[in-house]
Amino acid sequence: MMPMEKLVALCKRRGFLFQSSEIYGGLQGFWDYGPLGVELKRNVKAAWWHDMVGGHNELVTPPGAPGTYEMTGLDCTIIMHPQVWKCSGHYDLFHDHMVDCRETRKRYRFDQVRGRWVEAKDQKIFVTTTVEADEEQADVQRRALKFFKLRPKDAESLKYDGDFATLDSVQEQEKVLGPDAKELGTLTEPREFNLMFKTTIGALGGEADTAFLRPETAQGIFVNFKNVLDSSRMRLPMGIAQIGKSFRNEITPRNFTFRSREFEQMEIEFFCHPDESHKWYSYWRDRRLQWYKDMGLSSDRLIMREHAASELAHYSVGTADIEYAFPFMAEGEYGELEGVAHRGDFDLRSHMEGKLDPKTKPMEVEKNEHGQPKHRGSGKDLSYRDDLTGEKYIPHVVEPSAGADRATLAFLCQAFSEDEQPDEKGKMQTRTVLKFHPRLAPIKAAVFPLVKKDGMPEKAKEIYGMLKEKMSTFYDEKAAVGRRYRRQDEAGTPFCITVDGDSLKEDTVTIRDRDSLKQWRVATKDLVAELTERLS
Amino acid sequence: MMPMEKLVALCKRRGFLFQSSEIYGGLQGFWDYGPLGVELKRNVKAAWWHDMVGGHNELVTPPGAPGTYEMTGLDCTIIMHPQVWKCSGHYDLFHDHMVDCRETRKRYRFDQVRGRWVEAKDQKIFVTTTVEADEEQADVQRRALKFFKLRPKDAESLKYDGDFATLDSVQEQEKVLGPDAKELGTLTEPREFNLMFKTTIGALGGEADTAFLRPETAQGIFVNFKNVLDSSRMRLPMGIAQIGKSFRNEITPRNFTFRSREFEQMEIEFFCHPDESHKWYSYWRDRRLQWYKDMGLSSDRLIMREHAASELAHYSVGTADIEYAFPFMAEGEYGELEGVAHRGDFDLRSHMEGKLDPKTKPMEVEKNEHGQPKHRGSGKDLSYRDDLTGEKYIPHVVEPSAGADRATLAFLCQAFSEDEQPDEKGKMQTRTVLKFHPRLAPIKAAVFPLVKKDGMPEKAKEIYGMLKEKMSTFYDEKAAVGRRYRRQDEAGTPFCITVDGDSLKEDTVTIRDRDSLKQWRVATKDLVAELTERLS
Repeated sequence: MMPMEKLVALCKRRGFLFQSSEIYGGLQGFWDYGPLGVELKRNVKAAWWHDMVGGHNELVTPPGAPGTYEMTGLDCTIIMHPQVWKCSGHYDLFHDHMVDCRETRKRYRFDQVRGRWVEAKDQKIFVTTTVEADEEQADVQRRALKFFKLRPKDAESLKYDGDFATLDSVQEQEKVLGPDAKELGTLTEPREFNLMFKTTIGALGGEADTAFLRPETAQGIFVNFKNVLDSSRMRLPMGIAQIGKSFRNEITPRNFTFRSREFEQMEIEFFCHPDESHKWYSYWRDRRLQWYKDMGLSSDRLIMREHAASELAHYSVGTADIEYAFPFMAEGEYGELEGVAHRGDFDLRSHMEGKLDPKTKPMEVEKNEHGQPKHRGSGKDLSYRDDLTGEKYIPHVVEPSAGADRATLAFLCQAFSEDEQPDEKGKMQTRTVLKFHPRLAPIKAAVFPLVKKDGMPEKAKEIYGMLKEKMSTFYDEKAAVGRRYRRQDEAGTPFCITVDGDSLKEDTVTIRDRDSLKQWRVATKDLVAELTERLS
Repeated sequence: MMPMEKLVALCKRRGFLFQSSEIYGGLQGFWDYGPLGVELKRNVKAAWWHDMVGGHNELVTPPGAPGTYEMTGLDCTIIMHPQVWKCSGHYDLFHDHMVDCRETRKRYRFDQVRGRWVEAKDQKIFVTTTVEADEEQADVQRRALKFFKLRPKDAESLKYDGDFATLDSVQEQEKVLGPDAKELGTLTEPREFNLMFKTTIGALGGEADTAFLRPETAQGIFVNFKNVLDSSRMRLPMGIAQIGKSFRNEITPRNFTFRSREFEQMEIEFFCHPDESHKWYSYWRDRRLQWYKDMGLSSDRLIMREHAASELAHYSVGTADIEYAFPFMAEGEYGELEGVAHRGDFDLRSHMEGKLDPKTKPMEVEKNEHGQPKHRGSGKDLSYRDDLTGEKYIPHVVEPSAGADRATLAFLCQAFSEDEQPDEKGKMQTRTVLKFHPRLAPIKAAVFPLVKKDGMPEKAKEIYGMLKEKMSTFYDEKAAVGRRYRRQDEAGTPFCITVDGDSLKEDTVTIRDRDSLKQWRVATKDLVAELTERLS
């Protein structure tokens, strides 16, 4: 098995992740967190909230920051007023391009249909596929042989021209073989498909009652910006943070929890003076990258990808993606963990004045047939007045937008490792271990009596009770102690505490470290302090 | 202002709660948590999770419990496979009855249309209204006068017959005046309206892709029961807990956050042997009531309402609602905080065998035209095998189902109080204070320099920095210290720490208690320990 396959199997077997509604055949793009998974993800979210919001000291300038700043939180609804999405641009612009197959009635994301020119029997066709990059050549060959009615041993007679490319490289659509089609030229032109899940509020069900599940938590922050200012006495620069579910009706969810239709975000909208937004953008980009490193992701699997100037929206001075080399990706490819974007005053201005289409009509409101703005903004004044300088302005925004599920998946991938360790009889065995950062580990400590007699279980239970109130702790008295260690290694538990014969005599226990496998004795009375220090 | 009006105003002013999408006119039945609200609700959820799951010691029998038990957590998706809702019964049975008005095209919840017989000018009609109970008589009189073309001073000529009643008390529909109608007899017969929000998964949009936003988190636990058992080695009795958003398309959301369309639940499904389920039901009912008391709700505003035997589903030995006297309710009325239900093996069996309609066909599967069960279950074996006794059975379930928003609202209502306190000049002033339990308070401590000079701000900032890493802390140096106390009282901050001249000399600070207003000095070095102890 490949490492990723092993990890997926481990996640199911040990209760990190289950496919949603599995007993009914599952639901593509939806994942449930099991007993260990829910604790892991809770820890990821708690660490983010503490490090970004709760534990932030607004009186001290953090390293690399242009100054001090304030942070606070918000928790908005998933269903918001539909006008929010019209003004944000999501109603008009948040879509993927799809192609349909007239033969099979299947639908594909345009950019995920890849193919190659193949010639045989004096006919040259473009054979497409949607499988992963490392299998696409095999798939194209298999399908070309079938189309040309050739046998596998005739594979050498196929002539390939050019490299793999997407459909927009092809002029002659009548020569394209769709990913599941038997005939040529069955794919339609690409069409737009809005990625927001739609629903209806109330009992009437008219068009006026149509609403959407938010595709991002950010807009809830923008529309509440004035409410937060008015209620909190906060001054700029300041950030508003939110953790919550978002939904995107992905056409082809894939890669375990990486691209899901329901997912959780951890977003900050950071509001500052326009003149200082460039500095704050740099600060947040570096700060957020450092956070992933601090939480255990290794530097050589992380990259910061700055978007080229030509990729940026007109109002932006920069956007950077923090990306991680997930094991399901091809060599040299990375998947986005978090985007840090300089958004200028685009969002606040859109909610004031109406939707501004950044692609086609920079800073100009689209008009309807009556000459009125097509999507009216709220008309509310969302500008900020500095009470010290008297200056009034629309703040610029820097947005560090992280995926809680993607971060959790990256921590799982990073933690997964195998080594060779001797078992009880000294024979080398493969050990599977999840080397989580102690702050993220679902279980912090496991308590074992060495054997189930001589008062050891009683003593171990007492220690367990003492720890349980303070941290996530597991008690296990079943099977040989070596096997119990292995079970905790698979769960990623940093410390195992064993009660043995000496524990009863001298009131000490043995702590065993998950990664170094070192063992040492501590007095029972010092155990909580010792673990607390090592866990933080 | 009534206490509830004052509380609603305070919630907006201080940033506990905002109406969702307020700048776009708001969205009925949706509420956002502001800076203080998000911390309050996080604390409510964290307290519940710690007390029910994280801090539970499965080796010790809790007071009142029939034995020891295990607890674990789960976090499932909001959108699940549609078959989940067919088998759970929600697809067929989760509805309200509505009536439409043919004249105004408005729609009402059948049970919320209340009215009274009124006679004038030799005609007797049933005048209906949907306003709150304390205003319904005034509304009925106003509308009757209008219908009979009488002036306000003629109110005495109206003759009333009988008390307020719902529409099902009326035989002659042609004599009913709808809540907003001008003519008689415009209301339709009641019709069913399913309360689940509907959406569509994927790009095709056919009926097969219809999905629903979960109306409760419970079903995610039932369909994962086997996954949890298989992955965790847990043994019955055991509970699985989940916190998450649910959605109900209420026809008439009302009473602040009490009846919202999007809300958060804290649910436990507790699985046990059928012979012991009665005892576990009693345990959970009492345990959950006690939790609300421990968190500060006063006993005289809480009641436990046991459903009568005739109200129970055939499979249930009991259901109890834990209810609270919210200030927006009429004298002697209570609103549900949590339902504790004995559900027998109904849910697991339904997901095994198919939908069982508890109302009309006890334990018998409804058949379609081919004689097959109308809603097939998963066909998966969801029974439990006790590895000690060898017995195999379908567990019975006790379900303590709490609303996180309702609990938060109850804690706000309970905390809200006003008293008379002298201001700086000794003049008595009304003080508004939120007397939250320290575990729930959004801000735990506020640090003030007495005046902004003589090194006091520097010392206070140092103390603030020390506290901020450990707990939610606020720094304030603006305005007179009395005003700063008032602001913290309104936010519900249990402790204010003041740095004065003596602080610099002897390294001590003053702690002021929110409720008793007592002040005492402690050494700065002992401050964290002192606060930590008082907060837990």
